[in-house]
Amino acid sequence: MSIEERLKELGVELLPPPKPVASYVPVVVSGRVAFLAGQGAIVDGEVMYPGHVGAEVTIDQANEAARRCGLQALAALKEELGSLDRVSRIVNLTVYVSSAPGFTQQPVVANGASDLLIEVFGEAGRHARTAVGVPELPLNLCVEVSVIAEVD
Amino acid sequence: MSIEERLKELGVELLPPPKPVASYVPVVVSGRVAFLAGQGAIVDGEVMYPGHVGAEVTIDQANEAARRCGLQALAALKEELGSLDRVSRIVNLTVYVSSAPGFTQQPVVANGASDLLIEVFGEAGRHARTAVGVPELPLNLCVEVSVIAEVD
Amino acid sequence: MSIEERLKELGVELLPPPKPVASYVPVVVSGRVAFLAGQGAIVDGEVMYPGHVGAEVTIDQANEAARRCGLQALAALKEELGSLDRVSRIVNLTVYVSSAPGFTQQPVVANGASDLLIEVFGEAGRHARTAVGVPELPLNLCVEVSVIAEVD
Repeated sequence: MSIEERLKELGVELLPPPKPVASYVPVVVSGRVAFLAGQGAIVDGEVMYPGHVGAEVTIDQANEAARRCGLQALAALKEELGSLDRVSRIVNLTVYVSSAPGFTQQPVVANGASDLLIEVFGEAGRHARTAVGVPELPLNLCVEVSVIAEVD
Repeated sequence: MSIEERLKELGVELLPPPKPVASYVPVVVSGRVAFLAGQGAIVDGEVMYPGHVGAEVTIDQANEAARRCGLQALAALKEELGSLDRVSRIVNLTVYVSSAPGFTQQPVVANGASDLLIEVFGEAGRHARTAVGVPELPLNLCVEVSVIAEVD
Repeated sequence: MSIEERLKELGVELLPPPKPVASYVPVVVSGRVAFLAGQGAIVDGEVMYPGHVGAEVTIDQANEAARRCGLQALAALKEELGSLDRVSRIVNLTVYVSSAPGFTQQPVVANGASDLLIEVFGEAGRHARTAVGVPELPLNLCVEVSVIAEVD
């Protein structure tokens, strides 16, 4: 089953990825490695769940935003590569969680992106990952996800 | 001298690496590059020196925790590769230090991991590095270390 | 036109890069990928605009510091590679902005480095990028920039 078919089976629709908010590009492929710009969850031009997790934003909301970041990463890869079937492996995620003081469950937030990628790619979706707290993110995002993938 | 012999000479014993606390894997090898999941110092299932450096945690304690992160990274690489002799170079470290307000000696903390890797691998252990402060880390870790290595 | 000629045309002079402040090296090349140590803006041995953006440091100052980080990255690459003409692509930037509470314009700061690299390398200077806020940086830097480049 192709990744496109798998996305349909999951009922997942990829929207066009948001345009970068500054002087950079969404994806750079060097050799067989694709580096993606950091993704923040944007829906209809609005930041999804702005604020700090553990304060204005709940863990469940931030997990959902992280899932959305994963979807946007897929959309960016598809736009760059033509087809997600060219992605042979998700390699690494760095997940930055805007964290209220004392909030230490960054991995639960990050699972939103990780689980989505594993649902879509199966074993090839399993990646190394680092999750950390940060005090502020661009546009007051609650989570930002940086993805490295392997391409054929 | 093999890396395993070097570890014995240093009196360093690698314990089985802690299991990832969420939906990811400890190491992904893509081409000749190994990306490791972020390591936090865990001893006998307990976080080593939880808290913020410059407040509950001293620089020396955090340096020791960073060294432990380096050891865990070696254990993860050994489990993935079979032998550390397949590691041809330590390429890059990103070190996230849970920092109390005003704490700016992140490099001293990060040296705990860097120095360990240079002790073990010699010149091949010298790496590029970025050290930054963060407000919170998963499990209230005082330091988290992300490693990229080159493999044969 | 060579990159060296382009630098002259832009009136940009590369000074010798600052020495690493700890146990690491400025650049590691693995395969065709160069990983650079995190750059903080240092001028004549002094930190340029120390402090937090949105408090003691303005956005314009931090943007200027980020540009300086980009220049230092070029100087480090030139020292490692002999010539910047061996750089075939700027691949990825991670930009850590020391952020006062409520400061969310990290991308504007990061553009200082991004725009410099695009001025120098043109299309080959366009990179993927992640910009995040952090609470503290080494030496009280206002911004730290981590660069990955592709080399011939």
